Amino acid sequence: MENNPNLKIIHPEAKVYEGSFIDAFTVIGRGVIIEQDAYISKGVKIYGKAIIKAGTYIGENCIIGHPQRDFLKNMVKNKEQMINHEGPLVTINKSCIIRAGTIIYSEVTIGDNCQTGHNALIREKTEIKNNTVIGTNSIIDGNVSIGNNVSIQTGAYIPLFSTIGNNVFLGPYSKLTNDKYMMRKRFDLIGPTIEDNVSLGANSVIFPGVKVRNGTIVGAGAIVTKDTKEREIIVGNPAKFLKKIPDSWK
Amino acid sequence: MENNPNLKIIHPEAKVYEGSFIDAFTVIGRGVIIEQDAYISKGVKIYGKAIIKAGTYIGENCIIGHPQRDFLKNMVKNKEQMINHEGPLVTINKSCIIRAGTIIYSEVTIGDNCQTGHNALIREKTEIKNNTVIGTNSIIDGNVSIGNNVSIQTGAYIPLFSTIGNNVFLGPYSKLTNDKYMMRKRFDLIGPTIEDNVSLGANSVIFPGVKVRNGTIVGAGAIVTKDTKEREIIVGNPAKFLKKIPDSWK
Amino acid sequence: MENNPNLKIIHPEAKVYEGSFIDAFTVIGRGVIIEQDAYISKGVKIYGKAIIKAGTYIGENCIIGHPQRDFLKNMVKNKEQMINHEGPLVTINKSCIIRAGTIIYSEVTIGDNCQTGHNALIREKTEIKNNTVIGTNSIIDGNVSIGNNVSIQTGAYIPLFSTIGNNVFLGPYSKLTNDKYMMRKRFDLIGPTIEDNVSLGANSVIFPGVKVRNGTIVGAGAIVTKDTKEREIIVGNPAKFLKKIPDSWK
Repeated sequence: MENNPNLKIIHPEAKVYEGSFIDAFTVIGRGVIIEQDAYISKGVKIYGKAIIKAGTYIGENCIIGHPQRDFLKNMVKNKEQMINHEGPLVTINKSCIIRAGTIIYSEVTIGDNCQTGHNALIREKTEIKNNTVIGTNSIIDGNVSIGNNVSIQTGAYIPLFSTIGNNVFLGPYSKLTNDKYMMRKRFDLIGPTIEDNVSLGANSVIFPGVKVRNGTIVGAGAIVTKDTKEREIIVGNPAKFLKKIPDSWK
Repeated sequence: MENNPNLKIIHPEAKVYEGSFIDAFTVIGRGVIIEQDAYISKGVKIYGKAIIKAGTYIGENCIIGHPQRDFLKNMVKNKEQMINHEGPLVTINKSCIIRAGTIIYSEVTIGDNCQTGHNALIREKTEIKNNTVIGTNSIIDGNVSIGNNVSIQTGAYIPLFSTIGNNVFLGPYSKLTNDKYMMRKRFDLIGPTIEDNVSLGANSVIFPGVKVRNGTIVGAGAIVTKDTKEREIIVGNPAKFLKKIPDSWK
Repeated sequence: MENNPNLKIIHPEAKVYEGSFIDAFTVIGRGVIIEQDAYISKGVKIYGKAIIKAGTYIGENCIIGHPQRDFLKNMVKNKEQMINHEGPLVTINKSCIIRAGTIIYSEVTIGDNCQTGHNALIREKTEIKNNTVIGTNSIIDGNVSIGNNVSIQTGAYIPLFSTIGNNVFLGPYSKLTNDKYMMRKRFDLIGPTIEDNVSLGANSVIFPGVKVRNGTIVGAGAIVTKDTKEREIIVGNPAKFLKKIPDSWK
């Protein structure tokens, strides 16, 4: 069954490789490159500059290359069409699965073999390395660095200026925070640093600027108010030392 | 006002009953059955096999019959069009309200008179009985069984392999978990069992494999680390016995 | 690059001012007014009665004027087309930024210079004053009043019948609640009252009917079970007095 070609809008200066697939109700803007074997589902909008590399799947209704705030304001002022826009490059590398409803801003780089769940949000100036999973409804608010083999579970929240190492597990609805005084006192936002091999339990909260050291395990619902030590398990509100991690564990 | 018929894509092997309504910008795939008095809103995608029974409403931009992971990978590899796909049957029974933005995978059965809020996610191999409400942004991650008259409030999280009885109340952003060691030690995922008549407070967390017994009330923000007793109120982190439930309560 | 005019559906009784911009794949219903310099992005649906005032941006796939429950049921029963519907007025005032995926019901008023993140939900009978920010995935469940200069961070939850003053900060995934007995005992839903200048920490929970007094600071993860006093910091589960707020803070 052929789609009606009039149901797609592809900018003449977009570059769509042979052997890619673009479904109906899609919009591909100026400065977008869709490599071979990439799969663009129904209702997707991709704005330039953007590269979707070989073998990557973009699910229904995703928006790739969403404009950043300052551009958005100018765009409205000048009534510029998004399809003609060329913002800072967003790159989705090879063999990624970007599930339906995900929004990825301009100036983001996502490594090979990454996956998102549904309705994930990844804002600008963010770099995510390879083999990392970004769960459904999880939010990465921009200016964030994330390593390889990270498992970001459903609903996790990663605010501006956070740093996450390799092999990290962020449990469901775990939250990093960056705003210590919550509008009550002047404060420069500072995100936490989550070192390699850390596991954060479901619904845990990490305070602004806190360093969660290599291999720490944070219990479900724990509120982490200060830096942790390596390979310790901490639990409670506020989080306290429970025990060392057994040598038999990773 | 007539919609432009070219703005819908209906597969010739889909079966659309007279007396149903399908709005614009919709996609109805092969092997989909839309019964009489069903109402399909703008931007909805339904992929086969799927049955939408009489009197059911599907809100804007919903995706019904979303492919499971293994199929997705093959689909991308073979550049198969979703509209031609026929996966395991998804059934939405009579008089349901599926609100805008909800995503329901293949191999899901939803009973009569169920409702979802917006942007709910229900993944594969899930059965939901009758008169159950699945709130906005709540997530059911697949391989889950849910009874009758369950109230799943906004943002609740139900991971793989969870079981929920009848007349259960899951408060806003209550979370079940299934992964005890969070990548640090080998562990087979095991979800909690929530028995009949249980109420979980807002933002509570239930540990993997825990049985929450008939009629338990879990306080807001409680972290439930072990099995509970019937008709007890438990609160805190970790959750502890507060008092028996008064006989005058349900 | 011109959009194909057949890819928009604009009701002949909608009023679209010159100098506004409406992108492709959009639906503008009867009784909708789009003022000059308003910007309507791809895939947006706006149902009447609705006014989008000058300089306001509506991002991709937003739904404005979503029908309330009772109307929805009648609509399905009568197979009425949404585009012909005229429900209670929704007003989005000047220079707002409503980001992609946000859903706003009928009978909502949003003041000047407000912003939403992505996928925010604002249900019926809600009034939001000026310069207020409603974060990504935050949910306002209807019958809610919100003041000026409020910062509602990502994922905050505001249930039915809540009241929020001016200059309030609701941290990420902070939650108000309105249902004390969770289906176990008859109870009229009653939301909290959040007075002016309050700050709620990330993942905090406020009990039904609780008054959080002027200037209170609630710590991250705190569970607030009773009324607070002015300018106190409270923390823990259940939340207790930690210290008075220093005079040097706001």
